[in-house]
Amino acid sequence: MEKEHIAIVGAGLVGSMQACYMAQRGYRVSVFERRGDIREAEIVAGKSINLALSDRGFRALAGIGMEEAIRQISIPMKGRMIHDVEGNLNFQPYSKDGKCIYSVSRGGLNQLLLERADEYEDVSLHFNEKCKDFDLRNNSITFKNTETGAITTHHFDRIFGTDGAFSAVRGRLQKTDRFNYSQEYLTHGYKELEIPPLPGGKHRMEVNALHIWPRGEYMLIALPNLDGSYTVTLFFPFEGKVSFDTLNSDAAVMEFFSTTFPDALEHMPNLMEDFNTNPTSSLVMIKCFPWHYDDAVCLMGDAAHAIVPFYGQGMNAGFEDCTYFNDLMDTHNSDWEVVLKEYSRIRKPAGDAILELAVRNYIEMRDLTADPRFVLQKKIEKRFALQHPHLWMPLYEQVTFSHIPYEDALERGDIQNGIMKRVMDRDDIEDVWDSAEIEEAIIAEVQRLQLEAL
Amino acid sequence: MEKEHIAIVGAGLVGSMQACYMAQRGYRVSVFERRGDIREAEIVAGKSINLALSDRGFRALAGIGMEEAIRQISIPMKGRMIHDVEGNLNFQPYSKDGKCIYSVSRGGLNQLLLERADEYEDVSLHFNEKCKDFDLRNNSITFKNTETGAITTHHFDRIFGTDGAFSAVRGRLQKTDRFNYSQEYLTHGYKELEIPPLPGGKHRMEVNALHIWPRGEYMLIALPNLDGSYTVTLFFPFEGKVSFDTLNSDAAVMEFFSTTFPDALEHMPNLMEDFNTNPTSSLVMIKCFPWHYDDAVCLMGDAAHAIVPFYGQGMNAGFEDCTYFNDLMDTHNSDWEVVLKEYSRIRKPAGDAILELAVRNYIEMRDLTADPRFVLQKKIEKRFALQHPHLWMPLYEQVTFSHIPYEDALERGDIQNGIMKRVMDRDDIEDVWDSAEIEEAIIAEVQRLQLEAL
Repeated sequence: MEKEHIAIVGAGLVGSMQACYMAQRGYRVSVFERRGDIREAEIVAGKSINLALSDRGFRALAGIGMEEAIRQISIPMKGRMIHDVEGNLNFQPYSKDGKCIYSVSRGGLNQLLLERADEYEDVSLHFNEKCKDFDLRNNSITFKNTETGAITTHHFDRIFGTDGAFSAVRGRLQKTDRFNYSQEYLTHGYKELEIPPLPGGKHRMEVNALHIWPRGEYMLIALPNLDGSYTVTLFFPFEGKVSFDTLNSDAAVMEFFSTTFPDALEHMPNLMEDFNTNPTSSLVMIKCFPWHYDDAVCLMGDAAHAIVPFYGQGMNAGFEDCTYFNDLMDTHNSDWEVVLKEYSRIRKPAGDAILELAVRNYIEMRDLTADPRFVLQKKIEKRFALQHPHLWMPLYEQVTFSHIPYEDALERGDIQNGIMKRVMDRDDIEDVWDSAEIEEAIIAEVQRLQLEAL
Repeated sequence: MEKEHIAIVGAGLVGSMQACYMAQRGYRVSVFERRGDIREAEIVAGKSINLALSDRGFRALAGIGMEEAIRQISIPMKGRMIHDVEGNLNFQPYSKDGKCIYSVSRGGLNQLLLERADEYEDVSLHFNEKCKDFDLRNNSITFKNTETGAITTHHFDRIFGTDGAFSAVRGRLQKTDRFNYSQEYLTHGYKELEIPPLPGGKHRMEVNALHIWPRGEYMLIALPNLDGSYTVTLFFPFEGKVSFDTLNSDAAVMEFFSTTFPDALEHMPNLMEDFNTNPTSSLVMIKCFPWHYDDAVCLMGDAAHAIVPFYGQGMNAGFEDCTYFNDLMDTHNSDWEVVLKEYSRIRKPAGDAILELAVRNYIEMRDLTADPRFVLQKKIEKRFALQHPHLWMPLYEQVTFSHIPYEDALERGDIQNGIMKRVMDRDDIEDVWDSAEIEEAIIAEVQRLQLEAL
């Protein structure tokens, strides 16, 4: 029998990974990418986006034998390094027992995944192929080669849309009856900047941390790169009194950075050039349903659920789509009709939940990390989690260091937050925060709410 | 100076009306419609959609001198005629003083509006012209004639997208940065049916009413037509135990109608033919923002805010867009940049509010109109509104018989509902509902909440 022919539209992170998973299952896989081959692009560290990989992403990488290779090009970050306006530092570890998230170059990771996919005999890669048309009646896609202008139409047995937030595959599904869809933009955007290495290639700040300059309505963050640089991102309102609109001259930008981020500015000799050269980008949130069409088309990653970057889970959620899909193929004996329906049903609540968590984390990162009461609450929580690990896993750890479904983590986190709010409401909490009385009060609440059944 | 050239994409109800308003203001107007000329179509009453026109719609019609002409082809409906399963009737008037909504044929109304537009020398109408491409940089649109295949590209000074829920103009805006958009479908759909006239052309039921057969999770409604027929619509779940899915044979349909809508079935000799011939259609809700682009493109009607039909306000809201737009042109001296920005800012909350009201009214129509407690609440409200018209205008009347902005009506309605809930919570309410004590209790609440400042 001839092998089923799978199309993967979009050779980004999730598309490259899904190509590997499908090839492993013995399918014939054709990957189409609108842009050129990223393996031929020179990736300039510090000029490129980096991302935070965590446990969900690593599990998906392990499934295609790539966990160790990717760890090699990643930098562990043990916690948040909070910078206040005076330049004081406050380190907030991500877990009680040293667990890390990993800074990795998006381009570097994409290159390795594509190389891995290319190793399979049954995988063919096609670049500069833009999806122009899509006939759902017979699963055929028409591509236009952006270099030669050649138009080709191919029929496939199954099609994966892994073509990102502005997915052409999803664009076609949007026109089918009863397809729910929304795109919503934040009123904040972002601009990428750089902290270059010291002469000799050393890092200018603590390397094993995600640096945050929280400033209430906005923030600056920096993630380390292997070459000694940091990719810096300013998350900032588009409009208003302090906004991209008002930072409209070199003098205004320098004045703003020197009063708001003085200790970052010291490390940014190329600030003005970066600020004027790099684009100001928007942040979109995309939801849709279903994530499949019939027994033939499947959306994965940002094409199904583009989220904002504040929980460091966009890529991890996309990779987890691949893990779940692969598990469902095992469970349902590769019955595509059942698998696609189940995939939509199971993964949609996860996508909605991680979007909600990511939006909330923006407030936490830019505002709450600098709030003494928030820091105290986290301290109490961490202490309790250390004493009673079977009763309490902090929300951040559930999301980042576990494989608990996102929607369960969100629900459980809300219950935990209710408990902590009641604890923090005590007038004497600053004196008794580490007392046995508080510990027992939390135990009683956990038992009352039957929270231990994780 | 040459007249500015306005494109109106979509010659439906709102497009035809806006063509008249723009021609009145002295612009050169070209109207493009994807379908053929509806004036050449034979409109079969009872086979066509009818709509409920109310005060907001009539005001917009008055602005182009069409109020009286449209009243001539409309049938006043004084209230809801509720049919229970036993065939008992309960008439619930729409207002305390005989105000009506008007049943009108969508096709007939569209024909008259197009004829009106065609009377202006500076209006040209183009049919079978499908919008294929849209260049926002120079406001040029490419159309394909669906009969001849001819492709033409025209440049315009301003463009109105009045091309309905699946607007091609909005589709282009959806791809611009920071354009928020959502489409969401109800899990219920609808099917149109018919109650034909009696031999001789008489109506089979009360003619001056909107008939409702509320059945909890679903309902049947009927609106009268001039020829003696009624257009009947079944609003019904797509899936589930009692759903379009399960009404999958003639026997199942007949069984369902004879037990659920027996007194309607008596009047529906062609039920089976209609049921099998007419499509099952979905119900979509569309939101977006902004409703304009730059100083050049403007969305109106369903293209900006498609809602569900349960408040009878979809067309009225679209017509009101035209009234507001025209008023803003007066206020801001035809400064398009200001007018379009203000139009988006002012009309967006109105669109969101009428969508919310329409969704809620589905529950009210299919479920609450049959609930004795709900009926009592409405009776108390109506009594109080009669006694104190300056203190209380029922929500339905605010929406239907006033020009209060929809968002204000929604807010005020929620406050009124809070008051009524507290009144209904009294154990003895069924005995004292028409007492002076209740009247005074409501007055006290209205004054406490400063509700009188309408």
